Amino acid sequence: MSDARVGASGVVAVIGCGVIGRSWVRVFSRAGHEVRLWDSNVVATEAALAWHAAECARDGRGGVVVRGCASLPEALAGVAWCQESGPESLGAKQALFAALDAAAPPEAILASSTSTLDMTEIARGLSGAHRCIVAHPVNPPHVIPAVEVLGGEMTSGATVERTVEMLRAVGQVPVLLRRYVPGFLLNRMQAALLREAISLVERDIADVDAVDAVIRDGLGLRWALMGPFAVANTNADGGVREYFTRYASSFRLLMDDLGETPSMDAALIERLGAETDVMVGEPSRARVRAWRDRMVERLTALKREAGPP
Amino acid sequence: MSDARVGASGVVAVIGCGVIGRSWVRVFSRAGHEVRLWDSNVVATEAALAWHAAECARDGRGGVVVRGCASLPEALAGVAWCQESGPESLGAKQALFAALDAAAPPEAILASSTSTLDMTEIARGLSGAHRCIVAHPVNPPHVIPAVEVLGGEMTSGATVERTVEMLRAVGQVPVLLRRYVPGFLLNRMQAALLREAISLVERDIADVDAVDAVIRDGLGLRWALMGPFAVANTNADGGVREYFTRYASSFRLLMDDLGETPSMDAALIERLGAETDVMVGEPSRARVRAWRDRMVERLTALKREAGPP
Repeated sequence: MSDARVGASGVVAVIGCGVIGRSWVRVFSRAGHEVRLWDSNVVATEAALAWHAAECARDGRGGVVVRGCASLPEALAGVAWCQESGPESLGAKQALFAALDAAAPPEAILASSTSTLDMTEIARGLSGAHRCIVAHPVNPPHVIPAVEVLGGEMTSGATVERTVEMLRAVGQVPVLLRRYVPGFLLNRMQAALLREAISLVERDIADVDAVDAVIRDGLGLRWALMGPFAVANTNADGGVREYFTRYASSFRLLMDDLGETPSMDAALIERLGAETDVMVGEPSRARVRAWRDRMVERLTALKREAGPP
Repeated sequence: MSDARVGASGVVAVIGCGVIGRSWVRVFSRAGHEVRLWDSNVVATEAALAWHAAECARDGRGGVVVRGCASLPEALAGVAWCQESGPESLGAKQALFAALDAAAPPEAILASSTSTLDMTEIARGLSGAHRCIVAHPVNPPHVIPAVEVLGGEMTSGATVERTVEMLRAVGQVPVLLRRYVPGFLLNRMQAALLREAISLVERDIADVDAVDAVIRDGLGLRWALMGPFAVANTNADGGVREYFTRYASSFRLLMDDLGETPSMDAALIERLGAETDVMVGEPSRARVRAWRDRMVERLTALKREAGPP
């Protein structure tokens, strides 16, 4: 009964059926995996199943077996992969991973969507700590491919390899970290950009719409295609070496001049909120999110069709 | 002879014909403007004309009058707009703006592509300082729409208004700054992202390809559509106010934990160069640049066709 092989024939359990969990259901099911859902709140499971059915109807991709389960052991029986997307607290994750480790087949990978916690802490003391790993997606993973991958101290090399393989097989882009750091890569780089963005508004250099425009109609158009190093590499005929050597002192001056962490006090947040309201205008947040997801899908399709340079 | 009205019938002078200058020629000529080119080095003018002709042939957009000029007065006679893209040094810009102010029709706007200098300093003492303004593009402006706009202390409100109008009319996205700050908005936000990106590699958290992947297959896919504030606004049902209030202390902790300005010493730059070589592999830089520009064009076309949310 237990087919623990990772691949389109492997059964996947999605544990925790919020916005991230339901999106993972889409990722695995459209790649051909049988998916079982479980959430401590049965309403969340039902809502995720309804959302998933609507998504399948929308884009015509689906038709594989996706079903909700009444208990954790039922969801985990015979699975090759378990993707946990429960509450973001160390205590909750530790309790959940103990239950997952007890109930899942011994060969199954236990992956967590945590965006902040260290797998060394989550899996401490578990006999299956070697098969526990962080697989942190960008919201929503069925639209945005990057997934940060990082084991804890006890995680085996084989678990890391199988995780990378599984994520690639379902169409995601695994991004390997070497060691734990708060915020991983993604939230750190987002915080770096946001710190300067907020500081520019706080210091009256420009308004929210101007700061956003420089990204959405400027830097972001490149960053959808190339990261900061690949961009730097095209900025001089001698590539990154020439570019960073020539501008080393300019970069250091500018980097040292960047804004401090903003106050984030109530008055600043209200100002950011008011200026954002003016910028975005009428459309509802649900409408903007749907637009964003459809546009990202078209954008990634464009990249896929064009292939690399 | 002097038609100083800004619009598709206004004549434009492009002064300085390097990579930025020639790209501006494309911006103005495809919008229907007659464009005159001048560069202190006639070889640069010829090269820009050849590049422009090849671009028109490639996409079939062009056919308006574009010609090189032997002298600054010839290039400036009767123009409504002058876009300066000369060497990036204060002395050179001051000398050039003095010459432009002396030779251009009194109603013409004198815009500089400078990425670092303050127009207050460039135009100091000029009788036409009121019509001098920074219009800093992203490279290359015929592909990437954002243009940072900032006057000096003497720049008139009418000049700012006409600049915004002109840039919109030729299909660019003007981004207004309220006051001068080194690096303007764009290079500051780029430096903020790069500082953290380089620091993550320097501290052995991840390699160059992992850091880039988080942007090109993650954050960058959103940032091509929405700036950091619009993204934050979709992250909670109560928008920016709820999101920044709920996570204010998490953001401050993470922002305070971000990397310091990296050393940028020779060993670090060599490491970044070597890891970038591995990441990008075979294709030549020229090929990557051409791919980037075609892809950004398709991406902006996608956004234009879809319209806002």
